[in-house]
Amino acid sequence: MTETGARLLVDWGTTNLRAFLVDASREILERQASDQGILSVPPDDMPALLDQLAAPWSERLRGAPAVLCGMVGSINGWTEVPYVTCPAAPADLPKGAQKVTSAAGREVFILPGLTRHRRLGGELMQADVMRGEETQIFGALRHLKRSDATFCLPGTHAKWARVEAGRCADFATYFTGELYSVLIRHSLLGRLMEQAGDEAETALPEGFERGLRVAQAAEGLTGSLFSARADVLAGFMTKAESPGYLSGLLIGFEIREALPRFSPGVGAPGPIVIVGAHGLVPLYRTALHHSGVRVEELDGDTAVIAGLLQASELLDI
Amino acid sequence: MTETGARLLVDWGTTNLRAFLVDASREILERQASDQGILSVPPDDMPALLDQLAAPWSERLRGAPAVLCGMVGSINGWTEVPYVTCPAAPADLPKGAQKVTSAAGREVFILPGLTRHRRLGGELMQADVMRGEETQIFGALRHLKRSDATFCLPGTHAKWARVEAGRCADFATYFTGELYSVLIRHSLLGRLMEQAGDEAETALPEGFERGLRVAQAAEGLTGSLFSARADVLAGFMTKAESPGYLSGLLIGFEIREALPRFSPGVGAPGPIVIVGAHGLVPLYRTALHHSGVRVEELDGDTAVIAGLLQASELLDI
Repeated sequence: MTETGARLLVDWGTTNLRAFLVDASREILERQASDQGILSVPPDDMPALLDQLAAPWSERLRGAPAVLCGMVGSINGWTEVPYVTCPAAPADLPKGAQKVTSAAGREVFILPGLTRHRRLGGELMQADVMRGEETQIFGALRHLKRSDATFCLPGTHAKWARVEAGRCADFATYFTGELYSVLIRHSLLGRLMEQAGDEAETALPEGFERGLRVAQAAEGLTGSLFSARADVLAGFMTKAESPGYLSGLLIGFEIREALPRFSPGVGAPGPIVIVGAHGLVPLYRTALHHSGVRVEELDGDTAVIAGLLQASELLDI
Repeated sequence: MTETGARLLVDWGTTNLRAFLVDASREILERQASDQGILSVPPDDMPALLDQLAAPWSERLRGAPAVLCGMVGSINGWTEVPYVTCPAAPADLPKGAQKVTSAAGREVFILPGLTRHRRLGGELMQADVMRGEETQIFGALRHLKRSDATFCLPGTHAKWARVEAGRCADFATYFTGELYSVLIRHSLLGRLMEQAGDEAETALPEGFERGLRVAQAAEGLTGSLFSARADVLAGFMTKAESPGYLSGLLIGFEIREALPRFSPGVGAPGPIVIVGAHGLVPLYRTALHHSGVRVEELDGDTAVIAGLLQASELLDI
């Protein structure tokens, strides 16, 4: 424990950075957010950037260490921190953390991400990885005072995770967000849509609902995508509904894939805990309700702060 | 029948044009191919371009009419020819053809495409469309002397079709080719691959085979895409195998979706008739064999010529 008990907690992702100053009683005193994700900061500049984050809070932080999670621990980040393999407990994150030093000499602990290997059949192995979401998941677990839960974290690469007896037993990445983005921007489907963009999906509840219904009834995704065009030609929906439809289709198929794996309960499954503050959260809420699943929601900042705090306590810094 | 019995047959698609001169005995005398698809030719220039195609063959063609199929009959083509609705017979194509005139006054018959509407459940209707493939399908049927068959036409938007008692009963478009292309060119997966491009897929049989196996064993496509990256990080495959893997994954999921719908036979299903000359054909052959399906193959030119000839005979021109 440092002189003041304050801590600097940072979620340093691919495109964004979120920093929090907390005091000894776990109160969040201040926060900073920027688009200085690891893609926009050369690794050599990261030690100095950490000091910049600490500067406005230097009086309260004094020599307190910083705890970081996210892509900052990847091969393109500050230093590469090897993944911890599932099943993994919250204490495995500080155990696997790497200690580095900022330009001004502040101690910095970078938490590892998680990986999971699973056997698909025979000798066929499949891997998955996350960096940052594991800290949100363990933080959410602590915040909700649970030891068993299913989580869904919407995003460019949505993550689902199953926690059992306090350990992350399984997780998977769904390419839904990036798939929507590349199809809207670069495919024939996007070119033929009247309206496309980030707002399009939330603005068109009718198209979205239609996409969810098709995702439940059709054979699969590859054979359903072209209907975003053909259903307009046939007059089954308007051109303006098409982007919302595509979004519903993709999220609907994600849920259809993920539910049997992560929430195999009989009858009404759930609840699924949606973690995040992303604009996608309301879409996932609607989509999960549409599939008859109960949901709870937790803000992403709350989850990551709880996770970083837990790690810093376990690090005993 | 014209004075010479010769005919000008044209498959005029989105990005390509293929023209054939046939004589009265159905012999193919000469052929032309170019990239003058409808995307690169303004509709107003199409009547004159038809005369250019006829020019080198003018002595043998004399006043013979031309028969065209493909996207030339779409709203962005020469003239819009309304779709014929499935189930559809070969005779429905000439019945639905539109007659136009070239710049020099030659008669031109543009064949319609097909559409099919199906009920997914409740009031939920889903549409699909094709322009050009229907002529290949009916041509292949005639060439093979069949009245029942399942067809697979690989391409940017692969088509599967089921013909029963000589009529196209059902078909579907699979977005596989375009999905591969946008993911390789514009997604995180493509950026992280060592080698990407048109050759990548055929050059890497190991990666391709792995993709097929994952497509058979995993829950779905959305949750499998990220493994093209994660399996490299885990050392389960090399970075160079990753594009072939993605190709196998996408084609594998297409087949997994399409087989139960188009070839519901018990035991060893098939045969599936693969129609085309595209570089994708060997990949589909491998993938269908991998799923235990017998295949036959027919060259795309042979199929479309047979289909255009049949239409021209039914038009009685």
